[in-house]
Amino acid sequence: MRANGLQEVWQQGRCALNAWLSIGSSYSAEVVAHLPYDAVTVDLQHGMFDIETALSMLQAISTTAAVPMVRVPANTAWLIQKVLDMGAYGVICPMIDTRDQCEAFVRTMRYPPHGDRSYGPARGILYGGADYVNGADEAVLSWAMMETKLALENLEQIASVPGLHGLYIGPSDLSMTLEGVISNPLSPRVIRELERVIQVARAHNLRVGIFCPDVAFARVMVASGCDLVTVMNDAGLLRKATGAIIAEMQITADL
Amino acid sequence: MRANGLQEVWQQGRCALNAWLSIGSSYSAEVVAHLPYDAVTVDLQHGMFDIETALSMLQAISTTAAVPMVRVPANTAWLIQKVLDMGAYGVICPMIDTRDQCEAFVRTMRYPPHGDRSYGPARGILYGGADYVNGADEAVLSWAMMETKLALENLEQIASVPGLHGLYIGPSDLSMTLEGVISNPLSPRVIRELERVIQVARAHNLRVGIFCPDVAFARVMVASGCDLVTVMNDAGLLRKATGAIIAEMQITADL
Amino acid sequence: MRANGLQEVWQQGRCALNAWLSIGSSYSAEVVAHLPYDAVTVDLQHGMFDIETALSMLQAISTTAAVPMVRVPANTAWLIQKVLDMGAYGVICPMIDTRDQCEAFVRTMRYPPHGDRSYGPARGILYGGADYVNGADEAVLSWAMMETKLALENLEQIASVPGLHGLYIGPSDLSMTLEGVISNPLSPRVIRELERVIQVARAHNLRVGIFCPDVAFARVMVASGCDLVTVMNDAGLLRKATGAIIAEMQITADL
Amino acid sequence: MRANGLQEVWQQGRCALNAWLSIGSSYSAEVVAHLPYDAVTVDLQHGMFDIETALSMLQAISTTAAVPMVRVPANTAWLIQKVLDMGAYGVICPMIDTRDQCEAFVRTMRYPPHGDRSYGPARGILYGGADYVNGADEAVLSWAMMETKLALENLEQIASVPGLHGLYIGPSDLSMTLEGVISNPLSPRVIRELERVIQVARAHNLRVGIFCPDVAFARVMVASGCDLVTVMNDAGLLRKATGAIIAEMQITADL
Amino acid sequence: MRANGLQEVWQQGRCALNAWLSIGSSYSAEVVAHLPYDAVTVDLQHGMFDIETALSMLQAISTTAAVPMVRVPANTAWLIQKVLDMGAYGVICPMIDTRDQCEAFVRTMRYPPHGDRSYGPARGILYGGADYVNGADEAVLSWAMMETKLALENLEQIASVPGLHGLYIGPSDLSMTLEGVISNPLSPRVIRELERVIQVARAHNLRVGIFCPDVAFARVMVASGCDLVTVMNDAGLLRKATGAIIAEMQITADL
Amino acid sequence: MRANGLQEVWQQGRCALNAWLSIGSSYSAEVVAHLPYDAVTVDLQHGMFDIETALSMLQAISTTAAVPMVRVPANTAWLIQKVLDMGAYGVICPMIDTRDQCEAFVRTMRYPPHGDRSYGPARGILYGGADYVNGADEAVLSWAMMETKLALENLEQIASVPGLHGLYIGPSDLSMTLEGVISNPLSPRVIRELERVIQVARAHNLRVGIFCPDVAFARVMVASGCDLVTVMNDAGLLRKATGAIIAEMQITADL
Repeated sequence: MRANGLQEVWQQGRCALNAWLSIGSSYSAEVVAHLPYDAVTVDLQHGMFDIETALSMLQAISTTAAVPMVRVPANTAWLIQKVLDMGAYGVICPMIDTRDQCEAFVRTMRYPPHGDRSYGPARGILYGGADYVNGADEAVLSWAMMETKLALENLEQIASVPGLHGLYIGPSDLSMTLEGVISNPLSPRVIRELERVIQVARAHNLRVGIFCPDVAFARVMVASGCDLVTVMNDAGLLRKATGAIIAEMQITADL
Repeated sequence: MRANGLQEVWQQGRCALNAWLSIGSSYSAEVVAHLPYDAVTVDLQHGMFDIETALSMLQAISTTAAVPMVRVPANTAWLIQKVLDMGAYGVICPMIDTRDQCEAFVRTMRYPPHGDRSYGPARGILYGGADYVNGADEAVLSWAMMETKLALENLEQIASVPGLHGLYIGPSDLSMTLEGVISNPLSPRVIRELERVIQVARAHNLRVGIFCPDVAFARVMVASGCDLVTVMNDAGLLRKATGAIIAEMQITADL
Repeated sequence: MRANGLQEVWQQGRCALNAWLSIGSSYSAEVVAHLPYDAVTVDLQHGMFDIETALSMLQAISTTAAVPMVRVPANTAWLIQKVLDMGAYGVICPMIDTRDQCEAFVRTMRYPPHGDRSYGPARGILYGGADYVNGADEAVLSWAMMETKLALENLEQIASVPGLHGLYIGPSDLSMTLEGVISNPLSPRVIRELERVIQVARAHNLRVGIFCPDVAFARVMVASGCDLVTVMNDAGLLRKATGAIIAEMQITADL
Repeated sequence: MRANGLQEVWQQGRCALNAWLSIGSSYSAEVVAHLPYDAVTVDLQHGMFDIETALSMLQAISTTAAVPMVRVPANTAWLIQKVLDMGAYGVICPMIDTRDQCEAFVRTMRYPPHGDRSYGPARGILYGGADYVNGADEAVLSWAMMETKLALENLEQIASVPGLHGLYIGPSDLSMTLEGVISNPLSPRVIRELERVIQVARAHNLRVGIFCPDVAFARVMVASGCDLVTVMNDAGLLRKATGAIIAEMQITADL
Repeated sequence: MRANGLQEVWQQGRCALNAWLSIGSSYSAEVVAHLPYDAVTVDLQHGMFDIETALSMLQAISTTAAVPMVRVPANTAWLIQKVLDMGAYGVICPMIDTRDQCEAFVRTMRYPPHGDRSYGPARGILYGGADYVNGADEAVLSWAMMETKLALENLEQIASVPGLHGLYIGPSDLSMTLEGVISNPLSPRVIRELERVIQVARAHNLRVGIFCPDVAFARVMVASGCDLVTVMNDAGLLRKATGAIIAEMQITADL
Repeated sequence: MRANGLQEVWQQGRCALNAWLSIGSSYSAEVVAHLPYDAVTVDLQHGMFDIETALSMLQAISTTAAVPMVRVPANTAWLIQKVLDMGAYGVICPMIDTRDQCEAFVRTMRYPPHGDRSYGPARGILYGGADYVNGADEAVLSWAMMETKLALENLEQIASVPGLHGLYIGPSDLSMTLEGVISNPLSPRVIRELERVIQVARAHNLRVGIFCPDVAFARVMVASGCDLVTVMNDAGLLRKATGAIIAEMQITADL
């Protein structure tokens, strides 16, 4: 079975760099995946597209060596198993707040006897290889998102669920549930909690990933021991770069 | 009928700023159109999508004040009339090399008696208003692309075709046909020819637009008297901005 | 943030007129939205399309002043939050039968601290404006559908859920659960219950909307104090009008 | 091979009633096709969709007994042969102005030795039957649109092209090329020309079809001897019916 | 209302042959449906497509006499009711493990008073006829999948749920939950359990369907009394047949 | 630049095996491309899909080592250049009947100074590499289809067009233009002509490809010196394999 490239990155002691797709286009997905990112995540939660477009984006990513992952919109078995069957090599599940929810998530990700994933790995076999079913439980990463006050309270219990591969931090939602607003830069309290998540993950041999609004914050997170950082998403980067053109041209116009 | 916003820009004496879409997504189109560009062009020639996606992109642009234009893939009547019926308020036609070609293009753009556009302005009426048919010949801009050696030879004849609104310069193809390569920066010969196009356009009361690979070049083109400049396309800007993240993060990794 | 046009209609003391879309096409959506309806609702429950087409329909509606709303197929958080992120300015949730269900619905609609909506308002920000997150809880309407016997029993408790904006009556399902059939005209018992819903809504400062099978019934509902009426859907109107042509032509053929 | 239902209608001495689709949706196509129309035409010229959606519309129509036809956007061989391969049982070709154009059109419609249609009748065989290739030249109707001044001048020569099945009149374009405007009702001159087209068709054993803006005009055309009449299109009927609701409701509001 | 063709097959004492679609294409669906299968099932669980493509596949199947069924991805009311509204004449629901789950499934499939299906049978009425609502509870088959150890334990209780039409056996998942692997051929234990399902179904007047990995197994299942057998899916058959070409050609190459 | 795998196959002295796609699905395309075919051709002429689906199919093929090619529907510059920009590494152009047509085709395929391909190789650069523009003229194969009587008459002149890479034989159309029917097996006359095409190709250092209705014929063609053989298409293979199941099962039923 095809190995998960992220595990190779981590064996090299590197922090993985992950791209984030919210534009529903297999072409823009392929443009991004051809850059040397370690992983590319298709965001089905806040992305402006649905499952079938996600399939074509996963195919586009699979033309490169980047690891294709999906952030699903909910801890819903059929959604998770659908993107697994489509060949996702990692699933980031939002709003895991309790140990029960985490166990359900991990069970959904795994075939019997460790889980209750239904058999039918259509594109999974194409991408992963003929022995996909035997290796999928290990090769396909399950990430539980830590993004609410409640998740922080249950952190230890969530982190100790067997079969879970990593915790993925959502700082925006975390800020909102902790502080009621999204402060930029993040408040000391939020930072403190992020660091606690990283420590607890380390203690349980879990990987830690995080969404970062900019490079400066991502650098801090790399230094803090994160295993995977995402810096902005495609729509945000497109808007920033396209807007910058206007700004630069208006300076001219003023002259 | 809805006026063409570009004509208002030009009445103010400004050079219009145009965005260029090659990603086939109504969401990324809307992201770009919400930036204060004067116009947004859907590129059906080198863009990675087809007519039906172009429709949804035109609709997305129409949620803003930006003027929706389309670069068609060829001087083909049914293609041009299809995007007109879809509400394009400007058509940029590639590879206009002779006066005959330009006359055919302009005829295609206009209703009888000045042209042979077929009646059926489906979305055109929604976007343009109930009196669309009466005003479309004037409000919808026809741009002939000047991008070959042959076009330059026939420049005067092309520029004098009645009903044509503007010339749009494609420096990449122009370089390739003049020099055999795309030099960056453009060669003095190409620059000289661009300036000649601008002068001839001025002499015939035509607008001049140009695709620019970067801001520096666009500034020169504004100074040279262009009426509309396009700076890069969405895919290029997305790649640049997304790639820059990797570069900035790797600096960190090196430390 | 962009105000919700329905609130302006109601401040004028008018009953809003709402169109209802079950055809999955951004073009037919735009055709309808260009008529002077106050709101246009994309029906994801019984409409013959899915989320991604709903996005293009919301974009099409957003080319006009009509308020874009979505009837979701279920009281499911990820579905509701997906259409919110897509810029819906109102969500009609079917089958709200208990206070618990209504509270869950309203919580899903609102950002912390009043709810648990996840942050990521992709197109919401484009449509609503940069301060979308601050104003969305108020500007985006949450409608609970009253369409079962059980809902009627729990009416007072449902209506008193804080943060709910309105009750939306589904007379067909209501008839079926109350009478076992869809009678036309509605039975006195159903009419009586509709009026009770309107009264309870009034008492709790909620708006009331209703789906009407024809204009005659809609007129009665306006007179009864409804704040928003929907008269038929696009497919029904298309069938009616297209069928009428056959009827009228056959009269000719008989002659 | 499946017979063409229109030929059965004509053998009964009836004028066929044809529906016209400009909304790109297989669901609305199926709604219309389930009404007792004799034929349903997918309009690829002014319709707001493209070839692949046309396929799904042809499939939707094929769930009924209505004859599926396509109005192609141009007299372009690959377009025409594509919709033939998709199972169209009639092709209406716009802007046939000369005998040469008509001959090219008919040649494109027919297999060797009578034409140069390329072999590969994918869905044609599913819809038409295993012997499709043998019968297609006869069963699949070729309609040349008469809609310009030039076409009228060449009428006799066009009508005498062997293999052509019918003339289809486009009164809007005809008005525009003859009078410079679309008058409603049609001018006496346009009416006179329509009648001449019908007479010439009769003389050459061709069928005559026509697009009609309303029932009154269609009745006249039936009386004049047309074999197939189209009355409005889906988008126009949807707009009319949906707009009528507003009008009827506003009367109420005024009270 | 249109009768369910499967019931006619069974009245003739035949075992029905069912095709299984995992490729998201209305064309390949139509190719398969034109073969003399009794039923064709659109697999939304492990198939590589989503609801909207399922609609076009159901339309394609409806051009033939084959009964259109859908395997939904989960026992989720809105999903099930959506495919019902799209005209599915049978729903195969995965992972029915308890009587409660089966009751919920059947309730979802039926209109009041026997169930809680919401009214709005858009395409259902087109396919089924004007009286669809009255007959749908009976004509549209509800199949509960038996595919886990737990389901076998609750078999009697599940089979006795009123309104259920059949049990559908998933041998792959059954093997995995019973044996931890998918053995081929199936283990004696799995075979024993399959036979028990068939007997229990018979005892409760339920139909039995089963997915078969090859013809040999399907023959055994027909002999064992199954009412409907599925042999492989479209993707598997395409891969097998396309791969066979390579094998046959390579023999040549070796010579 | 990425080399063309077919040239490597030929350097090994092998005849390449090519798959042919007429089903518009990126999943079935990927299923086929994962089999060890040397090339996979997306058929835009008789395939039941359009350009945008072709893009997703090319992406799916690009997840494997198979060479992605496209059969375009016509010798039309914008169509050909569009699929080139989408990353096709070979274009098969139908109905090349004269030297002029072949020269136009080859010119369209090549950048200046050898051709007039317009610059904008969007996905071409992703698939081919950063130096795509320099190498595309050589790496991307241009195949002229020989499939008419006229083509055979002009064979020598066509074969000598500089820059052409190969001749691709369409036996069905060739039979129809030579004999008026598609005989199976092919008539001696057609066979004789095929062999002449192969000889002429050899004499001009061109590659020869051919579409074969079955393996037996393909073996003969390999022996005759063809460089690339296609054996059936995906829809034909799917129909054959799926139909075979019915045949095999009915034998059972008869017992």
